[in-house]
Amino acid sequence: MKDDATICAIATAPGMGAIAVLRLSGNDAIAIADSVYRSPNKAKKLTDQPANTLHYGSIEYDGKTLDDAIFALFKQPHSYTGEDVVEITCHGSVYIQQQVLQALTQSGARLAEPGEFTLRAFLNGKMDLSQAEAVADLIASESGAAHKMAMKQMRGGFSAEIGRLREQLLHLCSLLELELDFSEEDVEFADRTALKRLLEEIHNVMAHLTSSFSLGNVIKIGVPVAIVGKPNVGKSTLLNTLLQEEKAIVSEIAGTTRDAIEDVINIKGIRFRFIDTAGIRQTTDTIESLGIERTFSKISEASVVLLLAEAKCSKDEIQQQITALNLTPEQNLVIIINKIDLYNETEIIQKLGGKDAFAPYPVLFLSAKHHLHTNNLHDLLLDTVQSQALQTSDVVVSNARHYEALQNALEASNRALSGLDTSLPSDLIAQDIREILHYLGQITGEITTDEILGNIFKNFCIGK
Amino acid sequence: MKDDATICAIATAPGMGAIAVLRLSGNDAIAIADSVYRSPNKAKKLTDQPANTLHYGSIEYDGKTLDDAIFALFKQPHSYTGEDVVEITCHGSVYIQQQVLQALTQSGARLAEPGEFTLRAFLNGKMDLSQAEAVADLIASESGAAHKMAMKQMRGGFSAEIGRLREQLLHLCSLLELELDFSEEDVEFADRTALKRLLEEIHNVMAHLTSSFSLGNVIKIGVPVAIVGKPNVGKSTLLNTLLQEEKAIVSEIAGTTRDAIEDVINIKGIRFRFIDTAGIRQTTDTIESLGIERTFSKISEASVVLLLAEAKCSKDEIQQQITALNLTPEQNLVIIINKIDLYNETEIIQKLGGKDAFAPYPVLFLSAKHHLHTNNLHDLLLDTVQSQALQTSDVVVSNARHYEALQNALEASNRALSGLDTSLPSDLIAQDIREILHYLGQITGEITTDEILGNIFKNFCIGK
Repeated sequence: MKDDATICAIATAPGMGAIAVLRLSGNDAIAIADSVYRSPNKAKKLTDQPANTLHYGSIEYDGKTLDDAIFALFKQPHSYTGEDVVEITCHGSVYIQQQVLQALTQSGARLAEPGEFTLRAFLNGKMDLSQAEAVADLIASESGAAHKMAMKQMRGGFSAEIGRLREQLLHLCSLLELELDFSEEDVEFADRTALKRLLEEIHNVMAHLTSSFSLGNVIKIGVPVAIVGKPNVGKSTLLNTLLQEEKAIVSEIAGTTRDAIEDVINIKGIRFRFIDTAGIRQTTDTIESLGIERTFSKISEASVVLLLAEAKCSKDEIQQQITALNLTPEQNLVIIINKIDLYNETEIIQKLGGKDAFAPYPVLFLSAKHHLHTNNLHDLLLDTVQSQALQTSDVVVSNARHYEALQNALEASNRALSGLDTSLPSDLIAQDIREILHYLGQITGEITTDEILGNIFKNFCIGK
Repeated sequence: MKDDATICAIATAPGMGAIAVLRLSGNDAIAIADSVYRSPNKAKKLTDQPANTLHYGSIEYDGKTLDDAIFALFKQPHSYTGEDVVEITCHGSVYIQQQVLQALTQSGARLAEPGEFTLRAFLNGKMDLSQAEAVADLIASESGAAHKMAMKQMRGGFSAEIGRLREQLLHLCSLLELELDFSEEDVEFADRTALKRLLEEIHNVMAHLTSSFSLGNVIKIGVPVAIVGKPNVGKSTLLNTLLQEEKAIVSEIAGTTRDAIEDVINIKGIRFRFIDTAGIRQTTDTIESLGIERTFSKISEASVVLLLAEAKCSKDEIQQQITALNLTPEQNLVIIINKIDLYNETEIIQKLGGKDAFAPYPVLFLSAKHHLHTNNLHDLLLDTVQSQALQTSDVVVSNARHYEALQNALEASNRALSGLDTSLPSDLIAQDIREILHYLGQITGEITTDEILGNIFKNFCIGK
């Protein structure tokens, strides 16, 4: 995975900005930067400058002045990658960015692969693999909860937990393997009771981490929410009302743009993604079984379902719709009685049999069009996630690769535990423990292959 | 226009990137940065650090760690704005950018207005007004020629020329005004012959600068090109062919995205903008006069018109189409005989009466679909601009505000010159010269108003 080339890339967001930053990393980073640098007094050379300093000058290449820029110097090992790094801040024209990048590649640098700067940070021991992955999550984070989770992982919260488990296991494993060397003598270096207690503890921690994955995933990619109901009941109005309230909050901060805000709302740091169930409109009135199937498969993806009904509906009608949804116990259902502004709210509540008429499912009475009681919906949506104990300061697994490794480690620990119960020979138990160690090591990168690394870093953006 | 607030903004392109840069400028820039900065060893303070240095640490606000970041310190007057400046490089998540911006504003900074950093650079004497305007042009530059022109203006090429003229005029003006003080004695301090020679020289320079505006504008916003012709003659294919060839060139540089590449091609550093003349397709076959009018008004905006005809057309038919275009002498027309792959090229050329059949307009024989001879079109498009003497290293006026000021100065110089010829009293001539000085001073910003400044900087991006 590693070569000695000096790599370069545009590190700031693509497109035009006031300024842009290009990044160089590698043994020749400072020399290459120097070859395009020209100080105002002409004589100064970047190669003579101390670490962590800033230098104003122009970027010159092929006899042309490309821009005036600031050169920031970092020297190994005290840089992001652990190598010599130069960050060049130039004017943010797309044309200039391209020209400077070209000047750098033609002066001896190679274009960086996606995530290659972070890969080098990992290979140079600046961070472990799960921390490197957290960098990508951090950059992609679009909500407070996702940001907090990625930040914690980048700071090594997850790695510390895994590291502690591995260390304890390694100690026990080496004792077990010592027994193998003395197998003729039938000694027990590893206390079986202590071993079992430790394995059980590790098993519990891993099971807890594994079970946190659904929450981690929800934080990372958002809570999938489906809005369902008969035609003209106000589904689009409700969605627009939720989106508009969100947009109003976002636009308070000037100078930022959000791409693809469509159909995602952010309530107190948690993202809610609205699944497109447009199909239900056509299929509720036709008997085309394929269409119905597709719609219900979409509903089954949702972790929250908002069932919208009009106030004029009878309790039985709504109950029939609930039954037809065929929800699993894990799915959260909220029944929303819309267009309440057209009726007497108290009468409607009485007619439907009170606010607990559909217990355990909560019922909300609102008007999407007139923003009446929509705040209650915000609170209810948030409740569905907080019931998963988001507020704890626990370490949360959000990465599918970590989840898979943890599941494999969990299986191996199950085998090791039942091996201990049935007094299996030490070498078989040692083998299971080695397997746990292997899978835990994959998470932090102690055990890794070029293929794993390739898969991880190909999803990074270029310049990171 | 100036206040003492410390301003802040996101300075890199909007959206997600590997990293993002936030900029602070003002008396409290370093103190505000310090209030959110936490060094790894906890004790270090940014306020104690020397200028032009880089500092790693975390951004903490309201008890939360927002990110790990690099803080770059610049101290007045040696910064872009001439004030204390801190540039904070953090991870490029949109969420983090917003959070850090919020932390800075809540720690005492104010959100910067568009262009406010550059406005402060101007107000603090770091650059004159035309240089400040060149910064915006530089950022917006999307071609080699536009970049070169903006770079030259930012480096003061234009200002130097204007400054030299003003200085000479000021000298003469003071001599003229000295005469007024001694008006009883009828002396002439200012040599009338020398004054006339100088005014003529200045007049010529200003006339030359004014006339460069059309070229400057072409470089800045691109050469407007219209493709016209009967339906199904291959207009869209030709445009697509040109755009595809351009896209292929652009995509050679990885890691960059270009927005709105649609209908703009870049040939050897010059942009060509294709005007939408889609309307012509409907209106050539109908007699709806309004539609025809609109189409021809679009054609009249083009500085280059490509008239597309099929090889089966007769010379008379093409001649009729040329006449119908009703072009001005300033417009460049290229006649393109398309679908040449379907015919014998030599025969077609003979049939139409040779390659000079429509002189002075050049004729091109090509196949847009099969990319046959399309390179010749590139060369011809380039020729239409180069005939305007782009290759000279002259200073070029590209800014409408400068153009207007130059025209006003030119008028005043005409009045002064005819005043000299008719031996007008010194005070009247002095008044005209004062007017020239006034308008030239508007360009570089010696003479300016809040309104002018407001108009200029409102078009900047935030963060610059």
